[in-house]
Amino acid sequence: MTEEPRRLSLNAFIYPTGHHEAAWRHPDSRPESVYDVRYFQDIGRTAEAAKLDGVFLADGPALRTDVRHNATYGLEPITLLTAIASVTTHLGLIATASTTYYEPYNLARLFSSLDHISGGRAGWNIVTTGTDKAAANFGLDAHPDHAQRYERAREFVDAVVKLWDSWEDDALVVDKKTGVYADVAKIHEINYAGEHVKVRGPFGAARSPQGYPVLVQAGSSNDGRSFAGQHAEAIFTAHQRLSDAQVFYKDIKNRAAEFGRNPDHVKILPGISPFIADTEEQAHALEREFNELTIPEYGLAQLESIIGKSLRHVELDAPVPQDLFDDAGDVADNKASRLQVVAGIVQREKPTVRGLLHRLAGARGHRVFAGTPEQVADTIEEWFTQGAADGFNVMPPQYPQGLETFTTQVVPILQERGLFRTEYAGTTLRDHFGLPRPASQYARA
Amino acid sequence: MTEEPRRLSLNAFIYPTGHHEAAWRHPDSRPESVYDVRYFQDIGRTAEAAKLDGVFLADGPALRTDVRHNATYGLEPITLLTAIASVTTHLGLIATASTTYYEPYNLARLFSSLDHISGGRAGWNIVTTGTDKAAANFGLDAHPDHAQRYERAREFVDAVVKLWDSWEDDALVVDKKTGVYADVAKIHEINYAGEHVKVRGPFGAARSPQGYPVLVQAGSSNDGRSFAGQHAEAIFTAHQRLSDAQVFYKDIKNRAAEFGRNPDHVKILPGISPFIADTEEQAHALEREFNELTIPEYGLAQLESIIGKSLRHVELDAPVPQDLFDDAGDVADNKASRLQVVAGIVQREKPTVRGLLHRLAGARGHRVFAGTPEQVADTIEEWFTQGAADGFNVMPPQYPQGLETFTTQVVPILQERGLFRTEYAGTTLRDHFGLPRPASQYARA
Repeated sequence: MTEEPRRLSLNAFIYPTGHHEAAWRHPDSRPESVYDVRYFQDIGRTAEAAKLDGVFLADGPALRTDVRHNATYGLEPITLLTAIASVTTHLGLIATASTTYYEPYNLARLFSSLDHISGGRAGWNIVTTGTDKAAANFGLDAHPDHAQRYERAREFVDAVVKLWDSWEDDALVVDKKTGVYADVAKIHEINYAGEHVKVRGPFGAARSPQGYPVLVQAGSSNDGRSFAGQHAEAIFTAHQRLSDAQVFYKDIKNRAAEFGRNPDHVKILPGISPFIADTEEQAHALEREFNELTIPEYGLAQLESIIGKSLRHVELDAPVPQDLFDDAGDVADNKASRLQVVAGIVQREKPTVRGLLHRLAGARGHRVFAGTPEQVADTIEEWFTQGAADGFNVMPPQYPQGLETFTTQVVPILQERGLFRTEYAGTTLRDHFGLPRPASQYARA
Repeated sequence: MTEEPRRLSLNAFIYPTGHHEAAWRHPDSRPESVYDVRYFQDIGRTAEAAKLDGVFLADGPALRTDVRHNATYGLEPITLLTAIASVTTHLGLIATASTTYYEPYNLARLFSSLDHISGGRAGWNIVTTGTDKAAANFGLDAHPDHAQRYERAREFVDAVVKLWDSWEDDALVVDKKTGVYADVAKIHEINYAGEHVKVRGPFGAARSPQGYPVLVQAGSSNDGRSFAGQHAEAIFTAHQRLSDAQVFYKDIKNRAAEFGRNPDHVKILPGISPFIADTEEQAHALEREFNELTIPEYGLAQLESIIGKSLRHVELDAPVPQDLFDDAGDVADNKASRLQVVAGIVQREKPTVRGLLHRLAGARGHRVFAGTPEQVADTIEEWFTQGAADGFNVMPPQYPQGLETFTTQVVPILQERGLFRTEYAGTTLRDHFGLPRPASQYARA
């Protein structure tokens, strides 16, 4: 027998009514259900039925931009994933949470608990958060700068992993006869004292099934990539083109190797938002149908938040002014990757403002692809086999139908080609991603 | 028709293997299940089958005292209750969380989400937390003093309620045709700027089914009572004797009235930990059986943490030194109520140290009662009808059997006497407690 073939990882990135900004207006959408946990539990069931690796939730501790025209997230991601955990058995559960606006001890507890409750299916998408709106919800006048946030993030992750490691795996004794419940010699204070983070420990709970949740990361600035190379076990990234994705892929794998890590233990998962129909023409028509539901006022506000400049005076049907992106290369921020993606689109395609808004309406700078199920499978295979991706964060333009179309029409093709599992081989998210279970750093060899 | 008769509220206070400190050593206990969510989901199902108002979880952000000899909580309460919500439909879900060690915005989100996910069943037990161990997990050298913690708690609750109120109930429009998802005129910045808490808002989510979760409180110091009179909708309290409970009951109802509130909208729920058997003798024997499983080293550590003094040199079989409690009346702390309960026991009963440890082993200072199902029902009825309680926080000495015994043997007696519901009349925790749904403070009249 040869070794197991390399297999794709596929996550469903859940966005309430879909990733297309106008999805909620589509006749098939159910925007009245975005506070109904059963709606999301059904999405979880659909993802698990297709043997996806996991579901993923974005997050930020502030009201989303322009709620007037968008069906925003309303449920908090860790509680929502806990509810999805209750109706699934294998599906991975990845929640975004901020190192800037959480206390390490509190965040460590929530994710540890999700990992215990789900039997080892938790992942933490580590973000530093980049908005003044969030800062104002936490008593700060302005958002801490990018470098400071990454310094805190490094300390935060170190401290949280130490908390998760602070009970060795065999610390629980549970001997009714002698009355010894835990071996306190195997439960450690962590005494973490950084510049930004101080935590004594030990943690309040036993080590969780995966040792600790899968560490996921999404920033693509230089700080972000360095952080990813050092810490991340999975990376969500946004690329429009194969060549850009290949460069990023190689860079991250190299950085991981430089940190002494096995590059195979850093899974790189670009976003893809597929419009799927029986013919390519129908797929493009479907995309246009969604674009026609967009509201320019909303799209402009989103674009302003990406480029950080006012767009009040642009004309919708004139070409995008090139000077809007003059300093895009200098932005060292966790929005840098998205800004650069937008700058690239403008440079290559020279769209009108309305055209750019439509290009971005699909998935906020992530790659939108319209095609037949075969064509979607082809591009996934190409990126997977050509050194651009270990899998994908699938971002259906519309929920729940978009996910159902993907899972019932594209996944079977990927399975037939031997690229994607037909049954779960393990029960944890680490198993699905092919990641090892880490030993506690406090365990004696 | 006359008005509805006054009805008891009954919560099951969940403690992993039971409230008796040695419960985990009992042959019927399953201490290996305290990280298994299904174990707790079954407890939730048992509570709901008996039509209890809710379940309650204690919490503190630090490892519990002396884990060597005790099966501690391991799962984080809000996630655990979310998992219980997924397998129940009516049961209230009350989690303890600290105003000292949470950020208001984060805590507001977790409870809002629990309330949405459960369809209006969330309650928040507001604590200020009182241990240096917790402080050390949040970068502080020492715990903030009691008065400071209560000042922050007042601001924290104000700010969190404003966040929950910041979307008026009809802010969600969801009009696909016009593209208006929310009426932003009905979503308000809160601009809270206190000494300890600053939050701008608005909140990131629509108002939850109950308006906001039921506000529960447990501190019994003077600050605690004042806070309770002003804010609490339910109060968990510890009393050994009817007369003490009556004084407390009257005091809180008066304080609520002084704050302009309806005293019926403050439910007072003492703890009771019942050992139940077919005869009174058997019930006492059952209590002794548990006491014989205690480990004096563990009990002494607990007692030290209540009285704040070292007990290393006491003799187990000598009387408790009276001077240990000389300053019990002066302690203005959220442990004050428990300390005074202990001082009262020592004064009245003059026990040996071992005897006191056994008295406290049952429920950490809460009232332990051994008797037949009829006798347990009698004492509940007496306290309920004699102005000492609106209901009880039931603290089974052992889980899960202790809860099953209570629900199958005591609850039917209370139902026959017309003191307790036989069906849920509503679906929310507010419905069960008979509390009104608050209007948003931002809603225009």
